[in-house]
Amino acid sequence: MKIVLIGYGAMNQRVARLAEAKGHEIVGVIVRDVNKSYPYPTFERISDIQSADVAIDFSNPELLLPLLDDDFKLPLVIATTGEKEEIINKLKALSTQMPVFFSANMSYGVHALTKILEAAVPLLQDFDIELTEAHHNKKVDAPSGTLVKLYDVIESLREQSVPIYDRHENNEKRTQEEIGIHSVRGGTIVGQHDVLFAGTDETIEITHRAQSKDIFANGAIGAAEKLIQKTNNYYTFDNL
Amino acid sequence: MKIVLIGYGAMNQRVARLAEAKGHEIVGVIVRDVNKSYPYPTFERISDIQSADVAIDFSNPELLLPLLDDDFKLPLVIATTGEKEEIINKLKALSTQMPVFFSANMSYGVHALTKILEAAVPLLQDFDIELTEAHHNKKVDAPSGTLVKLYDVIESLREQSVPIYDRHENNEKRTQEEIGIHSVRGGTIVGQHDVLFAGTDETIEITHRAQSKDIFANGAIGAAEKLIQKTNNYYTFDNL
Amino acid sequence: MKIVLIGYGAMNQRVARLAEAKGHEIVGVIVRDVNKSYPYPTFERISDIQSADVAIDFSNPELLLPLLDDDFKLPLVIATTGEKEEIINKLKALSTQMPVFFSANMSYGVHALTKILEAAVPLLQDFDIELTEAHHNKKVDAPSGTLVKLYDVIESLREQSVPIYDRHENNEKRTQEEIGIHSVRGGTIVGQHDVLFAGTDETIEITHRAQSKDIFANGAIGAAEKLIQKTNNYYTFDNL
Amino acid sequence: MKIVLIGYGAMNQRVARLAEAKGHEIVGVIVRDVNKSYPYPTFERISDIQSADVAIDFSNPELLLPLLDDDFKLPLVIATTGEKEEIINKLKALSTQMPVFFSANMSYGVHALTKILEAAVPLLQDFDIELTEAHHNKKVDAPSGTLVKLYDVIESLREQSVPIYDRHENNEKRTQEEIGIHSVRGGTIVGQHDVLFAGTDETIEITHRAQSKDIFANGAIGAAEKLIQKTNNYYTFDNL
Repeated sequence: MKIVLIGYGAMNQRVARLAEAKGHEIVGVIVRDVNKSYPYPTFERISDIQSADVAIDFSNPELLLPLLDDDFKLPLVIATTGEKEEIINKLKALSTQMPVFFSANMSYGVHALTKILEAAVPLLQDFDIELTEAHHNKKVDAPSGTLVKLYDVIESLREQSVPIYDRHENNEKRTQEEIGIHSVRGGTIVGQHDVLFAGTDETIEITHRAQSKDIFANGAIGAAEKLIQKTNNYYTFDNL
Repeated sequence: MKIVLIGYGAMNQRVARLAEAKGHEIVGVIVRDVNKSYPYPTFERISDIQSADVAIDFSNPELLLPLLDDDFKLPLVIATTGEKEEIINKLKALSTQMPVFFSANMSYGVHALTKILEAAVPLLQDFDIELTEAHHNKKVDAPSGTLVKLYDVIESLREQSVPIYDRHENNEKRTQEEIGIHSVRGGTIVGQHDVLFAGTDETIEITHRAQSKDIFANGAIGAAEKLIQKTNNYYTFDNL
Repeated sequence: MKIVLIGYGAMNQRVARLAEAKGHEIVGVIVRDVNKSYPYPTFERISDIQSADVAIDFSNPELLLPLLDDDFKLPLVIATTGEKEEIINKLKALSTQMPVFFSANMSYGVHALTKILEAAVPLLQDFDIELTEAHHNKKVDAPSGTLVKLYDVIESLREQSVPIYDRHENNEKRTQEEIGIHSVRGGTIVGQHDVLFAGTDETIEITHRAQSKDIFANGAIGAAEKLIQKTNNYYTFDNL
Repeated sequence: MKIVLIGYGAMNQRVARLAEAKGHEIVGVIVRDVNKSYPYPTFERISDIQSADVAIDFSNPELLLPLLDDDFKLPLVIATTGEKEEIINKLKALSTQMPVFFSANMSYGVHALTKILEAAVPLLQDFDIELTEAHHNKKVDAPSGTLVKLYDVIESLREQSVPIYDRHENNEKRTQEEIGIHSVRGGTIVGQHDVLFAGTDETIEITHRAQSKDIFANGAIGAAEKLIQKTNNYYTFDNL
């Protein structure tokens, strides 16, 4: 594949490295300042690039949104976070003219975890649920965005759910509605998410462990490989 | 509920204790030798018992099968292992006249685990699968019956699967078809089953832990509580 | 062994059952109200019992402390929590005349965990530490007493330690001094304690899992079996 | 530090990248064919390099052993595996003239794990031990070298130990001497080692997880940083 990168931050540098290792070619990067030095030709607009098969975006709404108003036809794999609603609306409009893939989390495993949860929660109605995530000691926000996503899946299936972040000095029994949320921080842990279902004398635990941020880059490359074979439409991991 | 126990081995003694703690009544036990001393009235046949709501069986084919040829109407919760096909055939025939529940593993959590697996395996087609079970140091058979059940679920969804029990001195790379099977033995571990899906830079692990054999007794009591409200039919955990 | 039980609450009832299963004999219980009905002879004072080999206490300071002022000679296994300093002082005084064993947590495994921690913490000075405990959904206090004990072991070896109970909406990077503390609650989990050491690209995790409260009763019985062979002295798990 | 690399395989390429990121300088590589193209000056012998602070070796006995017969003075960090006895003898002889560090496994965490095991095994004499390692699906040997090292630590403390690799169709109860050994293979797992101690109603589990092979390179760099400040002697992780 001939790939255009939208943004050239840490994640798209990873995409470049991994895509080239797989035999793909990076034909250009779209960046704010096209005069700065990059290892690939720089472009301002998607339509400036003649021969590309797909664009992979790990950027931000400021860079991405204006690009989407441009006139072009190129399969798009979009991972920008923030301004989610506006981005999705624009992508859906564009998807009549080109295949478009969007996910705020490009890890296929995290996507699979949410699907497994959708199967597990209705089966385990009498089980208490607790969520734990672990990340490196430099991460400033807590809980992680992925944990929030897992919580949202659970809440959509157990409407009475209430998140609990601290039981210290609480001194009350757990209610069935509580979903305990625990953020572990330490070392260079890339990302671990754990859903515990605790019932009478038995527990079921579902754990996702990321070993490298490559999963996000590889998720985007894998989505691109599939997307360029698809008809014009709006895709997510659910229908790709 | 007024409960008849079919068999009075270790598991039905547990059912008696837990059912009484929940406010149910044991109205009799069906045993081979009705003259031996039991803490409950003994009976030879199901039809000998006048006022019961349900029978719970944890016995064996020798005791159970002749009983099923008798003429009676009573909701049945059957957990006998062995002679599975013959038992299911007889139970299905009886189920036109009474509700009948059958499961070779009365743990609801293990049932839920198999259902979660059925959702997970098709989602994680590129992931390698490894199965590990842990039990107490007195268990003589390996792998556990539950692990075999989990393997069967996977094999039904990945037909090329091949079980591998020992990699020591094997010195060959793992093939995608391999399902590694590991039997850990130690202490008094009641039962742990773990399914590992290992992909590129990420893993998903699903673990069931039993803390007490009460899960099997409580599973049967819970099934009985639901069954007595049902119409005549053959039930398993899938449709109860 | 001929055992006197001091107190006859849930834990000493467990001691009675397990000790008898091991072939020991319960020769009496010391309780507040000796006229109430108990399955064993009741006594007011330790000296009232003629032929005993050891006393096992799972009571409270109100019952225990006055008994210790009595005049008697009998090996003592004491597990009362609360008024720790006063109890230890009295036991040390008594230990010139009889062997005395004291532990606020009778689980040998938890004791071993603290010893393993004492070895691990100095080895892993550059690793971040996080503590997680999980207990059943009826437990009202958090964190568990055992987790506090583990924290104390760590703090004695890393004096700058600061416990952190909630990172939600904290939005600051973890400092090296932080020890994250997480209390998971759900189902009937008997007790799990986990110490995570997270370093650069590697973690070490030490986990203790209790499967049954029998560990506390068996820990006391095991200590009694050893204690009655010992000379007069004050013992803990460290020197028994 | 000015670092000489002995060998320039995958691991020393990693050392170069990580050392430079930390501000160190690679002043040369010692390789078999000095005429091949490398990103650093090539040398045949250690004495050919004028200004270096330390040499880091991840090579093999064929390359390393002849070098050690040369006449030179340079702190050495040696990680070659194979011919262990001969290498250690030569290094000990050299260590009267320069500080020398040797470890067949440069991960500090794995070293710490062995030390923790040395503390844990004597404490948990009545507990059954099982060892499990997990690695990527390309690894051909099983069990891993690190697991063998852990087994050796246990065997030195429990002399009756017997390794068991397969319990399938064994149909005998576990003996106390057995150490179950389990090799899990899947995906790109970098390396996980788990020691389970299973007792009566409680377990203690110690798990080391490597997230990246960087731990070996960083372990060597860290050892080098300490070594250059040391007096002439033979060092391992035990006395560095």
